[in-house]
Amino acid sequence: MSSLSTTHHSPLTTHNHAIIVAGGSGTRMGATIPKQFLLLNGKPVLMHTIEAFHNCKAQPHIILVLNTDFHTYWQQLCADHNFTVPHQLIKGGETRFHSVKNGLDRIPDDINAVVAVQDAVRPLTDKEIIDRSFTYALEHDNAIVAVKSRDSIRQVQNGRSVSLLRDDIYLIQTPQTFRLSQLKKAYEHGYDAKFTDDASVAEQSGMAINLIEGNYKNIKITFPEDIAIAEAILNKKPSA
Amino acid sequence: MSSLSTTHHSPLTTHNHAIIVAGGSGTRMGATIPKQFLLLNGKPVLMHTIEAFHNCKAQPHIILVLNTDFHTYWQQLCADHNFTVPHQLIKGGETRFHSVKNGLDRIPDDINAVVAVQDAVRPLTDKEIIDRSFTYALEHDNAIVAVKSRDSIRQVQNGRSVSLLRDDIYLIQTPQTFRLSQLKKAYEHGYDAKFTDDASVAEQSGMAINLIEGNYKNIKITFPEDIAIAEAILNKKPSA
Repeated sequence: MSSLSTTHHSPLTTHNHAIIVAGGSGTRMGATIPKQFLLLNGKPVLMHTIEAFHNCKAQPHIILVLNTDFHTYWQQLCADHNFTVPHQLIKGGETRFHSVKNGLDRIPDDINAVVAVQDAVRPLTDKEIIDRSFTYALEHDNAIVAVKSRDSIRQVQNGRSVSLLRDDIYLIQTPQTFRLSQLKKAYEHGYDAKFTDDASVAEQSGMAINLIEGNYKNIKITFPEDIAIAEAILNKKPSA
Repeated sequence: MSSLSTTHHSPLTTHNHAIIVAGGSGTRMGATIPKQFLLLNGKPVLMHTIEAFHNCKAQPHIILVLNTDFHTYWQQLCADHNFTVPHQLIKGGETRFHSVKNGLDRIPDDINAVVAVQDAVRPLTDKEIIDRSFTYALEHDNAIVAVKSRDSIRQVQNGRSVSLLRDDIYLIQTPQTFRLSQLKKAYEHGYDAKFTDDASVAEQSGMAINLIEGNYKNIKITFPEDIAIAEAILNKKPSA
Protein backbone atom coordinates (compact mmCIF):
# COMPACT_ATOMS: atom_id res chain seq x y z
CA MET A 1 0.00 0.00 0.00
CA SER A 2 3.10 2.25 -0.15
CA SER A 3 1.94 3.58 -3.52
CA LEU A 4 -0.92 5.47 -1.87
CA SER A 5 -0.97 9.19 -2.29
CA THR A 6 -0.73 11.18 0.89
CA THR A 7 -2.36 14.20 -0.70
CA HIS A 8 -6.12 14.50 -0.82
CA HIS A 9 -7.44 11.60 -2.82
CA SER A 10 -8.02 12.14 -6.48
CA PRO A 11 -8.59 9.44 -9.10
CA LEU A 12 -5.27 10.38 -10.59
CA THR A 13 -3.15 9.90 -7.48
CA THR A 14 -4.64 6.85 -5.76
CA HIS A 15 -5.32 3.27 -6.75
CA ASN A 16 -8.04 2.93 -4.11
CA HIS A 17 -11.64 3.79 -4.81
CA ALA A 18 -14.88 3.57 -2.88
CA ILE A 19 -18.32 3.56 -4.43
CA ILE A 20 -20.97 4.47 -1.86
CA VAL A 21 -24.33 3.31 -3.17
CA ALA A 22 -27.38 5.31 -2.12
CA GLY A 23 -29.40 4.98 -5.27
CA GLY A 24 -32.73 3.91 -3.78
CA SER A 25 -35.71 6.11 -3.12
CA GLY A 26 -36.03 4.74 0.38
CA THR A 27 -39.62 3.67 -0.07
CA ARG A 28 -39.27 1.00 2.62
CA MET A 29 -38.87 3.66 5.31
CA GLY A 30 -41.74 5.00 7.37
CA ALA A 31 -40.01 8.36 7.51
CA THR A 32 -40.60 10.85 4.73
CA ILE A 33 -36.92 11.12 3.78
CA PRO A 34 -34.81 8.27 2.36
CA LYS A 35 -33.04 6.32 5.06
CA GLN A 36 -29.51 7.47 4.16
CA PHE A 37 -30.55 11.00 5.14
CA LEU A 38 -31.98 10.12 8.56
CA LEU A 39 -30.12 11.74 11.42
CA LEU A 40 -27.84 9.52 13.47
CA ASN A 41 -26.54 11.40 16.50
CA GLY A 42 -27.63 14.58 14.73
CA LYS A 43 -25.81 13.86 11.46
CA PRO A 44 -27.17 12.20 8.31
CA VAL A 45 -26.41 8.47 8.10
CA LEU A 46 -24.63 8.97 4.76
CA MET A 47 -22.12 11.38 6.27
CA HIS A 48 -21.10 8.75 8.84
CA THR A 49 -20.62 6.25 6.02
CA ILE A 50 -18.52 8.61 3.91
CA GLU A 51 -16.40 9.60 6.93
CA ALA A 52 -15.52 5.96 7.65
CA PHE A 53 -13.92 5.77 4.20
CA HIS A 54 -12.34 9.21 4.52
CA ASN A 55 -10.77 8.27 7.85
CA CYS A 56 -9.33 4.91 6.87
CA LYS A 57 -5.68 4.47 5.92
CA ALA A 58 -6.53 3.34 2.39
CA GLN A 59 -7.70 6.92 1.66
CA PRO A 60 -9.86 5.94 -1.31
CA HIS A 61 -11.23 8.29 -3.87
CA ILE A 62 -14.89 8.44 -2.85
CA ILE A 63 -17.73 8.29 -5.36
CA LEU A 64 -21.26 8.80 -4.06
CA VAL A 65 -23.97 7.34 -6.29
CA LEU A 66 -27.28 9.02 -5.54
CA ASN A 67 -30.65 9.33 -7.27
CA THR A 68 -30.56 12.69 -9.07
CA ASP A 69 -33.83 13.66 -7.33
CA PHE A 70 -31.76 14.08 -4.17
CA HIS A 71 -28.63 15.79 -5.46
CA THR A 72 -29.76 19.29 -4.49
CA TYR A 73 -31.06 18.04 -1.15
CA TRP A 74 -27.72 16.36 -0.44
CA GLN A 75 -25.73 19.45 -1.35
CA GLN A 76 -27.92 21.50 0.97
CA LEU A 77 -27.38 18.93 3.75
CA CYS A 78 -23.62 19.17 3.23
CA ALA A 79 -23.82 22.95 3.56
CA ASP A 80 -26.07 22.74 6.64
CA HIS A 81 -23.76 20.27 8.37
CA ASN A 82 -20.49 21.85 7.21
CA PHE A 83 -19.66 18.53 5.62
CA THR A 84 -16.49 19.05 3.60
CA VAL A 85 -15.21 15.50 3.02
CA PRO A 86 -14.25 15.41 -0.69
CA HIS A 87 -16.39 13.06 -2.78
CA GLN A 88 -17.58 12.81 -6.36
CA LEU A 89 -21.38 12.93 -6.64
CA ILE A 90 -22.86 10.99 -9.57
CA LYS A 91 -26.34 9.86 -10.58
CA GLY A 92 -27.94 6.64 -9.39
CA GLY A 93 -29.34 3.96 -11.64
CA GLU A 94 -32.63 2.07 -11.68
CA THR A 95 -31.37 -0.66 -9.33
CA ARG A 96 -28.36 -1.13 -7.06
CA PHE A 97 -26.65 -2.96 -9.96
CA HIS A 98 -27.08 -0.01 -12.30
CA SER A 99 -25.93 2.44 -9.63
CA VAL A 100 -22.72 0.49 -8.97
CA LYS A 101 -22.15 0.23 -12.71
CA ASN A 102 -22.49 4.02 -13.04
CA GLY A 103 -19.82 4.33 -10.37
CA LEU A 104 -17.48 1.83 -12.04
CA ASP A 105 -17.87 3.62 -15.38
CA ARG A 106 -16.46 6.78 -13.77
CA ILE A 107 -13.23 5.09 -12.64
CA PRO A 108 -10.47 5.06 -15.28
CA ASP A 109 -9.02 1.65 -16.11
CA ASP A 110 -6.03 1.00 -13.88
CA ILE A 111 -4.44 -2.41 -13.52
CA ASN A 112 -3.44 -1.68 -9.90
CA ALA A 113 -6.74 -0.27 -8.74
CA VAL A 114 -8.96 -1.71 -6.02
CA VAL A 115 -12.56 -0.63 -5.47
CA ALA A 116 -14.73 -1.02 -2.38
CA VAL A 117 -18.50 -0.95 -2.81
CA GLN A 118 -20.38 0.19 0.28
CA ASP A 119 -24.05 0.50 1.23
CA ALA A 120 -24.77 4.14 2.09
CA VAL A 121 -27.00 2.88 4.88
CA ARG A 122 -24.21 1.10 6.78
CA PRO A 123 -22.92 4.03 8.80
CA LEU A 124 -21.14 1.96 11.45
CA THR A 125 -18.56 0.20 9.29
CA ASP A 126 -15.18 0.12 11.07
CA LYS A 127 -12.37 1.90 9.27
CA GLU A 128 -10.05 -0.98 10.26
CA ILE A 129 -12.33 -3.41 8.41
CA ILE A 130 -12.37 -1.15 5.37
CA ASP A 131 -8.56 -1.13 5.35
CA ARG A 132 -8.43 -4.89 5.78
CA SER A 133 -10.75 -5.29 2.79
CA PHE A 134 -8.48 -3.15 0.60
CA THR A 135 -5.35 -5.03 1.68
CA TYR A 136 -6.96 -8.44 1.25
CA ALA A 137 -8.48 -7.60 -2.15
CA LEU A 138 -5.15 -6.33 -3.43
CA GLU A 139 -3.57 -9.70 -2.57
CA HIS A 140 -6.49 -12.06 -3.30
CA ASP A 141 -8.61 -10.17 -5.90
CA ASN A 142 -11.61 -9.64 -3.60
CA ALA A 143 -12.68 -9.40 0.02
CA ILE A 144 -16.32 -9.56 1.09
CA VAL A 145 -17.12 -8.55 4.65
CA ALA A 146 -19.31 -11.14 6.37
CA VAL A 147 -20.40 -12.42 9.78
CA LYS A 148 -21.68 -15.82 10.84
CA SER A 149 -25.39 -16.10 11.52
CA ARG A 150 -26.34 -15.99 15.20
CA ASP A 151 -29.78 -17.40 14.43
CA SER A 152 -30.66 -20.81 13.07
CA ILE A 153 -31.28 -20.62 9.33
CA ARG A 154 -33.93 -22.30 7.19
CA GLN A 155 -34.20 -22.34 3.42
CA VAL A 156 -37.46 -22.82 1.54
CA GLN A 157 -36.97 -25.68 -0.94
CA ASN A 158 -39.97 -26.83 -3.01
CA GLY A 159 -42.38 -25.10 -0.65
CA ARG A 160 -40.92 -26.70 2.46
CA SER A 161 -38.46 -25.08 4.87
CA VAL A 162 -35.27 -27.01 5.49
CA SER A 163 -32.65 -26.45 8.17
CA LEU A 164 -29.21 -25.35 6.92
CA LEU A 165 -26.02 -25.96 8.89
CA ARG A 166 -25.52 -22.64 10.65
CA ASP A 167 -21.74 -22.94 10.58
CA ASP A 168 -21.78 -22.83 6.77
CA ILE A 169 -23.91 -19.68 6.54
CA TYR A 170 -22.61 -16.13 6.34
CA LEU A 171 -24.56 -12.89 6.44
CA ILE A 172 -22.98 -10.59 3.90
CA GLN A 173 -22.28 -6.95 4.64
CA THR A 174 -20.31 -4.23 2.93
CA PRO A 175 -17.67 -3.15 2.02
CA GLN A 176 -17.26 -5.65 -0.81
CA THR A 177 -13.87 -4.88 -2.27
CA PHE A 178 -12.47 -6.03 -5.61
CA ARG A 179 -9.72 -5.53 -8.12
CA LEU A 180 -11.26 -2.83 -10.29
CA SER A 181 -10.55 -4.64 -13.56
CA GLN A 182 -12.31 -7.80 -12.35
CA LEU A 183 -15.38 -6.03 -10.98
CA LYS A 184 -15.71 -3.98 -14.16
CA LYS A 185 -15.62 -7.18 -16.21
CA ALA A 186 -18.25 -8.81 -13.97
CA TYR A 187 -20.61 -5.86 -14.34
CA GLU A 188 -20.28 -6.05 -18.13
CA HIS A 189 -22.11 -9.41 -18.11
CA GLY A 190 -25.37 -7.55 -17.53
CA TYR A 191 -28.17 -7.36 -15.01
CA ASP A 192 -29.96 -10.24 -13.30
CA ALA A 193 -32.85 -9.62 -10.88
CA LYS A 194 -31.36 -12.10 -8.45
CA PHE A 195 -28.30 -9.93 -7.79
CA THR A 196 -28.48 -8.52 -4.27
CA ASP A 197 -24.88 -7.43 -3.93
CA ASP A 198 -21.55 -7.20 -5.75
CA ALA A 199 -20.39 -10.63 -4.65
CA SER A 200 -23.33 -12.22 -6.46
CA VAL A 201 -22.51 -10.24 -9.62
CA ALA A 202 -18.84 -11.27 -9.40
CA GLU A 203 -19.72 -14.90 -8.68
CA GLN A 204 -21.98 -15.01 -11.75
CA SER A 205 -18.97 -14.02 -13.86
CA GLY A 206 -17.01 -16.97 -12.50
CA MET A 207 -14.96 -15.37 -9.70
CA ALA A 208 -14.26 -17.21 -6.46
CA ILE A 209 -15.52 -15.08 -3.58
CA ASN A 210 -13.39 -14.51 -0.46
CA LEU A 211 -15.12 -13.74 2.82
CA ILE A 212 -13.34 -11.71 5.49
CA GLU A 213 -14.58 -11.25 9.04
CA GLY A 214 -16.75 -8.26 9.81
CA ASN A 215 -18.62 -7.47 13.00
CA TYR A 216 -22.23 -7.47 14.13
CA LYS A 217 -22.42 -3.74 14.74
CA ASN A 218 -22.07 -3.03 10.99
CA ILE A 219 -25.86 -2.90 10.65
CA LYS A 220 -27.92 -1.70 7.71
CA ILE A 221 -30.40 1.08 8.43
CA THR A 222 -33.47 -0.54 6.90
CA PHE A 223 -36.25 0.73 9.17
CA PRO A 224 -36.52 4.02 11.11
CA GLU A 225 -36.18 2.13 14.40
CA ASP A 226 -32.71 1.04 13.33
CA ILE A 227 -31.55 4.61 14.00
CA ALA A 228 -32.11 4.11 17.75
CA ILE A 229 -30.17 0.85 17.56
CA ALA A 230 -27.32 2.47 15.65
CA GLU A 231 -27.22 5.30 18.20
CA ALA A 232 -27.08 2.75 21.03
CA ILE A 233 -24.10 1.09 19.33
CA LEU A 234 -22.37 4.40 18.63
CA ASN A 235 -22.90 5.83 22.09
CA LYS A 236 -22.06 2.71 24.05
CA LYS A 237 -19.11 3.08 26.35
CA PRO A 238 -16.41 0.48 25.71
CA SER A 239 -17.36 -2.66 27.65
CA ALA A 240 -15.56 -3.29 30.94
CA MET B 1 -58.61 -21.31 22.42
CA SER B 2 -61.88 -21.30 24.45
CA SER B 3 -60.60 -24.24 26.50
CA LEU B 4 -58.01 -22.08 28.20
CA SER B 5 -58.22 -21.69 31.92
CA THR B 6 -58.72 -18.18 33.14
CA THR B 7 -57.28 -18.99 36.56
CA HIS B 8 -53.56 -18.77 37.20
CA HIS B 9 -51.85 -21.28 34.98
CA SER B 10 -51.09 -24.69 36.38
CA PRO B 11 -50.22 -27.78 34.37
CA LEU B 12 -53.54 -29.22 35.44
CA THR B 13 -55.75 -26.39 34.18
CA THR B 14 -54.13 -25.28 30.95
CA HIS B 15 -53.17 -26.97 27.70
CA ASN B 16 -50.55 -24.29 26.98
CA HIS B 17 -46.98 -24.60 28.16
CA ALA B 18 -43.83 -22.57 27.69
CA ILE B 19 -40.32 -23.90 28.19
CA ILE B 20 -37.84 -21.05 28.68
CA VAL B 21 -34.36 -22.38 28.00
CA ALA B 22 -31.50 -20.75 29.89
CA GLY B 23 -29.33 -23.78 30.32
CA GLY B 24 -25.97 -22.37 29.16
CA SER B 25 -23.20 -21.10 31.34
CA GLY B 26 -22.96 -17.95 29.26
CA THR B 27 -19.28 -18.40 28.49
CA ARG B 28 -19.58 -16.36 25.31
CA MET B 29 -20.26 -13.20 27.34
CA GLY B 30 -17.58 -10.75 28.31
CA ALA B 31 -19.55 -9.99 31.47
CA THR B 32 -18.99 -12.13 34.54
CA ILE B 33 -22.63 -13.23 34.80
CA PRO B 34 -24.47 -15.32 32.22
CA LYS B 35 -26.26 -13.20 29.68
CA GLN B 36 -29.80 -14.04 30.80
CA PHE B 37 -29.04 -12.28 34.10
CA LEU B 38 -27.70 -9.05 32.59
CA LEU B 39 -29.80 -6.03 33.47
CA LEU B 40 -32.03 -4.64 30.75
CA ASN B 41 -33.60 -1.36 31.87
CA GLY B 42 -32.63 -2.37 35.41
CA LYS B 43 -34.25 -5.82 35.31
CA PRO B 44 -32.61 -9.15 34.41
CA VAL B 45 -33.13 -10.17 30.77
CA LEU B 46 -34.78 -13.42 31.87
CA MET B 47 -37.53 -11.60 33.77
CA HIS B 48 -38.48 -9.70 30.61
CA THR B 49 -38.67 -13.00 28.74
CA ILE B 50 -40.83 -14.69 31.36
CA GLU B 51 -43.13 -11.65 31.59
CA ALA B 52 -43.82 -11.77 27.84
CA PHE B 53 -45.25 -15.27 28.30
CA HIS B 54 -47.04 -14.33 31.51
CA ASN B 55 -48.71 -11.37 29.82
CA CYS B 56 -49.89 -13.11 26.65
CA LYS B 57 -53.45 -14.34 26.22
CA ALA B 58 -52.39 -17.98 25.92
CA GLN B 59 -51.41 -17.86 29.62
CA PRO B 60 -49.06 -20.83 29.40
CA HIS B 61 -47.72 -22.79 32.33
CA ILE B 62 -44.11 -21.54 32.44
CA ILE B 63 -41.16 -23.87 32.96
CA LEU B 64 -37.74 -22.28 33.39
CA VAL B 65 -34.85 -24.60 32.58
CA LEU B 66 -31.69 -23.33 34.25
CA ASN B 67 -28.27 -24.75 35.08
CA THR B 68 -28.49 -25.80 38.75
CA ASP B 69 -25.37 -23.72 39.49
CA PHE B 70 -27.60 -20.67 39.12
CA HIS B 71 -30.80 -21.75 40.91
CA THR B 72 -29.94 -20.03 44.19
CA TYR B 73 -28.70 -16.96 42.33
CA TRP B 74 -31.95 -16.79 40.35
CA GLN B 75 -34.10 -17.15 43.46
CA GLN B 76 -32.16 -14.33 45.08
CA LEU B 77 -32.64 -12.19 41.95
CA CYS B 78 -36.39 -12.87 42.10
CA ALA B 79 -36.44 -11.76 45.74
CA ASP B 80 -34.34 -8.67 45.02
CA HIS B 81 -36.55 -7.61 42.11
CA ASN B 82 -39.88 -8.61 43.74
CA PHE B 83 -40.40 -10.89 40.76
CA THR B 84 -43.50 -12.95 41.52
CA VAL B 85 -44.53 -14.33 38.12
CA PRO B 86 -45.31 -18.01 38.74
CA HIS B 87 -42.94 -20.42 37.04
CA GLN B 88 -41.57 -23.89 37.59
CA LEU B 89 -37.77 -23.94 37.98
CA ILE B 90 -36.02 -27.11 36.78
CA LYS B 91 -32.44 -28.12 36.06
CA GLY B 92 -30.69 -27.55 32.74
CA GLY B 93 -29.00 -30.24 30.69
CA GLU B 94 -25.62 -30.45 29.02
CA THR B 95 -26.81 -28.82 25.78
CA ARG B 96 -29.87 -26.88 24.69
CA PHE B 97 -31.33 -30.17 23.42
CA HIS B 98 -31.00 -31.81 26.82
CA SER B 99 -32.42 -28.78 28.59
CA VAL B 100 -35.52 -28.71 26.39
CA LYS B 101 -35.91 -32.45 26.88
CA ASN B 102 -35.79 -31.97 30.68
CA GLY B 103 -38.60 -29.45 30.29
CA LEU B 104 -40.69 -31.71 28.06
CA ASP B 105 -40.27 -34.57 30.54
CA ARG B 106 -41.96 -32.46 33.21
CA ILE B 107 -45.10 -31.88 31.16
CA PRO B 108 -47.73 -34.62 31.54
CA ASP B 109 -48.94 -36.22 28.31
CA ASP B 110 -51.99 -34.37 27.05
CA ILE B 111 -53.36 -34.81 23.54
CA ASN B 112 -54.57 -31.18 23.44
CA ALA B 113 -51.43 -29.58 24.75
CA VAL B 114 -49.25 -27.09 22.90
CA VAL B 115 -45.76 -26.12 24.03
CA ALA B 116 -43.70 -23.06 23.10
CA VAL B 117 -39.92 -23.25 23.46
CA GLN B 118 -38.25 -19.90 24.02
CA ASP B 119 -34.66 -18.67 24.31
CA ALA B 120 -34.22 -17.04 27.73
CA VAL B 121 -32.05 -14.44 26.02
CA ARG B 122 -34.80 -13.12 23.74
CA PRO B 123 -36.38 -10.60 26.11
CA LEU B 124 -38.14 -8.54 23.43
CA THR B 125 -40.50 -11.19 22.03
CA ASP B 126 -43.94 -9.66 21.40
CA LYS B 127 -46.77 -11.22 23.36
CA GLU B 128 -48.94 -10.98 20.23
CA ILE B 129 -46.45 -13.15 18.36
CA ILE B 130 -46.41 -15.66 21.22
CA ASP B 131 -50.20 -15.88 21.03
CA ARG B 132 -50.11 -16.25 17.27
CA SER B 133 -47.64 -19.12 17.63
CA PHE B 134 -49.94 -20.95 20.06
CA THR B 135 -52.97 -20.46 17.83
CA TYR B 136 -51.14 -21.51 14.68
CA ALA B 137 -49.53 -24.56 16.30
CA LEU B 138 -52.89 -25.74 17.64
CA GLU B 139 -54.27 -25.70 14.09
CA HIS B 140 -51.20 -26.72 12.09
CA ASP B 141 -49.07 -28.73 14.58
CA ASN B 142 -46.21 -26.23 14.78
CA ALA B 143 -45.32 -22.57 14.31
CA ILE B 144 -41.74 -21.36 14.11
CA VAL B 145 -41.17 -17.62 14.39
CA ALA B 146 -38.90 -16.36 11.62
CA VAL B 147 -37.88 -13.24 9.71
CA LYS B 148 -36.44 -12.83 6.24
CA SER B 149 -32.78 -12.00 6.00
CA ARG B 150 -32.01 -8.33 5.39
CA ASP B 151 -28.46 -9.17 4.33
CA SER B 152 -27.32 -11.16 1.33
CA ILE B 153 -26.52 -14.73 2.33
CA ARG B 154 -23.67 -17.00 1.27
CA GLN B 155 -23.21 -20.68 2.05
CA VAL B 156 -19.84 -22.42 2.11
CA GLN B 157 -20.03 -25.46 -0.18
CA ASN B 158 -16.87 -27.52 -0.70
CA GLY B 159 -14.68 -24.72 0.61
CA ARG B 160 -16.20 -22.10 -1.69
CA SER B 161 -18.87 -19.58 -0.73
CA VAL B 162 -21.97 -19.57 -2.91
CA SER B 163 -24.76 -17.00 -3.04
CA LEU B 164 -28.18 -18.20 -1.87
CA LEU B 165 -31.42 -16.61 -3.05
CA ARG B 166 -32.20 -14.22 -0.19
CA ASP B 167 -35.96 -14.56 -0.66
CA ASP B 168 -35.74 -18.25 0.26
CA ILE B 169 -33.78 -17.69 3.48
CA TYR B 170 -35.29 -17.23 6.93
CA LEU B 171 -33.55 -16.34 10.17
CA ILE B 172 -35.15 -18.44 12.87
CA GLN B 173 -36.13 -17.00 16.24
CA THR B 174 -38.19 -18.23 19.14
CA PRO B 175 -40.82 -19.04 20.25
CA GLN B 176 -40.95 -22.34 18.39
CA THR B 177 -44.32 -23.79 19.25
CA PHE B 178 -45.50 -27.37 18.76
CA ARG B 179 -48.16 -29.89 19.64
CA LEU B 180 -46.69 -31.35 22.82
CA SER B 181 -47.12 -34.96 21.71
CA GLN B 182 -45.23 -34.34 18.47
CA LEU B 183 -42.33 -32.46 20.05
CA LYS B 184 -41.98 -35.12 22.74
CA LYS B 185 -41.79 -37.78 20.05
CA ALA B 186 -39.17 -35.79 18.13
CA TYR B 187 -36.99 -35.41 21.22
CA GLU B 188 -37.13 -39.17 21.80
CA HIS B 189 -35.09 -39.72 18.62
CA GLY B 190 -31.98 -38.59 20.49
CA TYR B 191 -29.31 -35.92 20.29
CA ASP B 192 -27.42 -34.76 17.21
CA ALA B 193 -24.68 -32.11 17.46
CA LYS B 194 -26.11 -30.31 14.43
CA PHE B 195 -29.36 -29.40 16.26
CA THR B 196 -29.42 -25.66 16.89
CA ASP B 197 -33.10 -25.32 17.70
CA ASP B 198 -36.35 -27.24 18.12
CA ALA B 199 -37.35 -26.94 14.49
CA SER B 200 -34.22 -28.87 13.47
CA VAL B 201 -35.03 -31.58 16.03
CA ALA B 202 -38.62 -31.80 14.79
CA GLU B 203 -37.56 -31.79 11.14
CA GLN B 204 -35.16 -34.69 11.79
CA SER B 205 -38.12 -36.71 13.05
CA GLY B 206 -39.96 -36.12 9.78
CA MET B 207 -42.22 -33.18 10.64
CA ALA B 208 -42.96 -30.44 8.12
CA ILE B 209 -41.96 -27.11 9.68
CA ASN B 210 -44.26 -24.08 9.45
CA LEU B 211 -42.74 -20.60 9.61
CA ILE B 212 -44.77 -17.67 10.93
CA GLU B 213 -43.75 -14.04 10.71
CA GLY B 214 -41.80 -12.54 13.58
CA ASN B 215 -40.14 -9.16 13.77
CA TYR B 216 -36.59 -7.85 13.71
CA LYS B 217 -36.66 -6.47 17.24
CA ASN B 218 -36.86 -9.98 18.71
CA ILE B 219 -33.08 -10.06 19.11
CA LYS B 220 -30.96 -12.57 21.00
CA ILE B 221 -28.71 -11.13 23.69
CA THR B 222 -25.46 -12.79 22.58
CA PHE B 223 -22.89 -10.15 23.49
CA PRO B 224 -22.89 -7.56 26.32
CA GLU B 225 -23.27 -4.76 23.77
CA ASP B 226 -26.62 -6.22 22.74
CA ILE B 227 -28.03 -4.89 26.02
CA ALA B 228 -27.62 -1.32 24.77
CA ILE B 229 -29.35 -2.30 21.54
CA ALA B 230 -32.21 -3.98 23.39
CA GLU B 231 -32.62 -0.91 25.59
CA ALA B 232 -32.71 1.30 22.51
CA ILE B 233 -35.50 -0.86 21.09
CA LEU B 234 -37.41 -0.98 24.38
CA ASN B 235 -37.14 2.72 25.07
CA LYS B 236 -37.89 3.92 21.56
CA LYS B 237 -40.99 6.05 21.27
CA PRO B 238 -43.48 4.67 18.73
CA SER B 239 -42.45 5.97 15.31
CA ALA B 240 -44.40 8.91 13.91
